Amino acid sequence: MNKTQSKQLGFAVELAREAGEIMKHSVRKDLAIEMKEDKTVVTDVDKRINSMVIDAVRKEYPKHDILAEEYSPKSKNSGYTWVCDPVDGTMVFSKGIPMSVFSIALVENGRSSIGVIYDPFHDKMFTGVAGFGAKLNNDKISVSNEYSFQGAVIGMAAWKSAQRDIIESYSAFIDRGASVLMLGSIAQMGALVASGELSASLHPARMPYDTAAAKVIVTEAGGRVTSLSGTSQAYDRPIEGAILSNKFLHDKLVDIVRTISEPDFTYSE
Amino acid sequence: MNKTQSKQLGFAVELAREAGEIMKHSVRKDLAIEMKEDKTVVTDVDKRINSMVIDAVRKEYPKHDILAEEYSPKSKNSGYTWVCDPVDGTMVFSKGIPMSVFSIALVENGRSSIGVIYDPFHDKMFTGVAGFGAKLNNDKISVSNEYSFQGAVIGMAAWKSAQRDIIESYSAFIDRGASVLMLGSIAQMGALVASGELSASLHPARMPYDTAAAKVIVTEAGGRVTSLSGTSQAYDRPIEGAILSNKFLHDKLVDIVRTISEPDFTYSE
Repeated sequence: MNKTQSKQLGFAVELAREAGEIMKHSVRKDLAIEMKEDKTVVTDVDKRINSMVIDAVRKEYPKHDILAEEYSPKSKNSGYTWVCDPVDGTMVFSKGIPMSVFSIALVENGRSSIGVIYDPFHDKMFTGVAGFGAKLNNDKISVSNEYSFQGAVIGMAAWKSAQRDIIESYSAFIDRGASVLMLGSIAQMGALVASGELSASLHPARMPYDTAAAKVIVTEAGGRVTSLSGTSQAYDRPIEGAILSNKFLHDKLVDIVRTISEPDFTYSE
Repeated sequence: MNKTQSKQLGFAVELAREAGEIMKHSVRKDLAIEMKEDKTVVTDVDKRINSMVIDAVRKEYPKHDILAEEYSPKSKNSGYTWVCDPVDGTMVFSKGIPMSVFSIALVENGRSSIGVIYDPFHDKMFTGVAGFGAKLNNDKISVSNEYSFQGAVIGMAAWKSAQRDIIESYSAFIDRGASVLMLGSIAQMGALVASGELSASLHPARMPYDTAAAKVIVTEAGGRVTSLSGTSQAYDRPIEGAILSNKFLHDKLVDIVRTISEPDFTYSE
């Protein structure tokens, strides 16, 4: 890792720790939520961390762009974009369930080069640097080795029944002997693919906030990340969902999702 | 609470702590699993805790019956049955995900009178005593107050696509604005209904191991627990799934599940 990368990683980890402190001290039942236009929810905590990230990037990397879930400054088309989900799993966070994470990535011309996902409730810092591996805290991590659905555990997320490709996939997976978890945070499920607790994870998100960091962490842990239809994609602009896997199951997952239906990205979220 | 109940509760809590110690020290990735006839999995940890529970009940309550997930002694038809799931969420447990719980209930002639669910990874001891309220550690707990699906968070579990009532319900819930979590442990989701993090939880289980304790804890926290079709049921024999709710959402949940399909209990698990 060169000096620039090392500094970028340190910067992202530091931001994650600060965000984590805020999250730990503000998670509680009955946190006030606001409904956004896209029908997802936001809390003051999301907004506060979002602002903190913008301030920090502006100070440390004034030429870089920022794409953050709650608010993004006007693009400078710099080719370097910090992609951030300040609180991924806002709904569970607002119910006091300590299962949400902070996620940030540096995306260079569409390619995730640095990824950090932090679970402050269990002090789990997942990091990935393109070409230099993935870690959980200080230990190298790698994906699981399941070749078949029998005994595999797959993370999923869907938030509209129009997302038939996801819901029907769910039936297909459990029929083949897999277990399905829906943990409420896409970035956390991505991190758990990297560390081998989940065999794979998939979701239909249209924005890259909660996948950009997982992309590099999972890839560096030996896994594979594509769109729902199996194509590679850029993570500094809208995406077409994602499949994150241990690599061995990837083609099978793509086949199932593709067989079930043409992924529908006309919905907005 | 009379002296007998107080002693029974203390006995169950003590067992839960012992089970929790074993779980905490043995959770890890790549734990050896065995496939059971019903296609669910079991580990040596489940069996070890199951034996511990049988030994303890035999010693303390030699006239009582035991109905435990991995092995149950021959029934004495005593009318008093300790119903136990030694590790609920065995699949996530065997993947090293610290999200499983120990669950035990004393069921008197079908009616849960004492319930204890213990999450050893977060040291959360949920208890309920019929007529005497529900607690999380030392604090009284109560269910959430959502009247509508918008903003509700619903826990679910299904393990076969034949369980169409569950899978189609999932679509119906998210269409109405609810979020759905699948946390991998039915008993844990029940406990989270009692403490108000989840608005409701439902599953198609045919055995009462992971619901008997939640039944009394949720009820004592102000919620409601019925079969998937909305009927009351005994918890010392096979059940027809369960809906555990904050009470306000209960009839709506029953209606949705009933509208979608006749629950199918011909499958075995």
